[in-house]
Amino acid sequence: MKQNNYNQEDTSYIIGRNAVTEALKAGSPINQIFVASMNGSLGAICSAARKQGIPVKVTDARKLDSMAGGNHQGVCAEGACAQYATVAEILAVSEKKGAKPFLILCDGIEDPHNLGAIIRTAEASGADGIILPKRRSASLTQTVFKTSAGAASWLPVARVSNLATEMIALKKQGLWFYGADMNGAPATKTDLKGAIGLVIGSEGFGLSEPVKAQCDGIISLPMFGKVNSLNASVAAGILMYEAIRQRSEER
Amino acid sequence: MKQNNYNQEDTSYIIGRNAVTEALKAGSPINQIFVASMNGSLGAICSAARKQGIPVKVTDARKLDSMAGGNHQGVCAEGACAQYATVAEILAVSEKKGAKPFLILCDGIEDPHNLGAIIRTAEASGADGIILPKRRSASLTQTVFKTSAGAASWLPVARVSNLATEMIALKKQGLWFYGADMNGAPATKTDLKGAIGLVIGSEGFGLSEPVKAQCDGIISLPMFGKVNSLNASVAAGILMYEAIRQRSEER
Repeated sequence: MKQNNYNQEDTSYIIGRNAVTEALKAGSPINQIFVASMNGSLGAICSAARKQGIPVKVTDARKLDSMAGGNHQGVCAEGACAQYATVAEILAVSEKKGAKPFLILCDGIEDPHNLGAIIRTAEASGADGIILPKRRSASLTQTVFKTSAGAASWLPVARVSNLATEMIALKKQGLWFYGADMNGAPATKTDLKGAIGLVIGSEGFGLSEPVKAQCDGIISLPMFGKVNSLNASVAAGILMYEAIRQRSEER
Repeated sequence: MKQNNYNQEDTSYIIGRNAVTEALKAGSPINQIFVASMNGSLGAICSAARKQGIPVKVTDARKLDSMAGGNHQGVCAEGACAQYATVAEILAVSEKKGAKPFLILCDGIEDPHNLGAIIRTAEASGADGIILPKRRSASLTQTVFKTSAGAASWLPVARVSNLATEMIALKKQGLWFYGADMNGAPATKTDLKGAIGLVIGSEGFGLSEPVKAQCDGIISLPMFGKVNSLNASVAAGILMYEAIRQRSEER
């Protein structure tokens, strides 16, 4: 079992085939794995676990149901979901890549499904990591892990006491912050090629005032409808890939 | 109460403040509205309903809970969630706008939260409408309405027996179809400015073979991570806004 420097929090369950498979690949600390059977794709999970010396137990469906509190697809891993990285570890990722930092800041995303989807998109888009505030935010729960389809095992996620204070510190290190909000400049006309942090506001209230005040720019997506708001994880995904489009042009 | 030509299906509930507010604004057929109280934003809903001659009943929380089967924010409207448009009605939308058609086809989106988020993004991005297959697909349920934040009251959604057959008919009318799948051309390098339908595959299996065979092009998003798949509604949102970016350039 791989050891690392992340703060290890309370033991919980990683639920579902994708999430457990990715946790095993990433070498996440897992104590044991519970499966409904050893057939099919569950068999592959069992052999991967055994290669790492992780005990596998065949368990009845009712026990899996009670661990998962939802659809477990026949597998739960007991281990630490919540491994937080530090902001320094996230910055080390971009340094190692030799690329300009590309961070995602979530300013009060409270729905675990949104946070999971944001982690999934951030990992796919090649972002370096995610920064969350400790309060008023979803944290790395098993729902977040499952919704991230395992990406939460790969992408470093840091938690800080105060997001605005962290932004001030990072601006001194050369980062520029772009907050997603109404009435901003069009994202496609804003230069997102440099060392940046994209800041995503909360589902109900958008960016908080202290965080907004630290943003170097506010960016928006054009809205042509009557409802004119997007799901937070969809808006985050569109903006991440707009940044990727611009950053790929530069290569 | 507005009458229209949509097929009206079984009576169900529209749940939550946004969804009910938008349904009222859109003149959706509502039989009556149940509220927990008449205070605050619920009061505004009550007066909007009364102006349309829709009866409002103050109801105890337990009855609302049983109607909603989830978080109702103090309001449920009894009416028809499922009002389907025809494909001809969707094409009439772009004709009325004097713009080239921009349709979204969902090839087997089964998660109602994904379908709701896709409808919400499609409405905001100015797409003309959505086409769903009758089978192997989420339909316009109350969960879809709520997740769409009311956008399902505005955006026409059509259901067809066979998506591939419908594509053949629409290609004869000048539409080009771009399917989202692995190993396609980069979406940002593909011309999405014309009369197009974006085709989104199912969460688990992507595009079905018959639908893929009717696509004029397959488009992909770059993936830089280890997990390398996106939530279906996030991927759909990124592609819709990529099309919007290109189509805005032309204006």
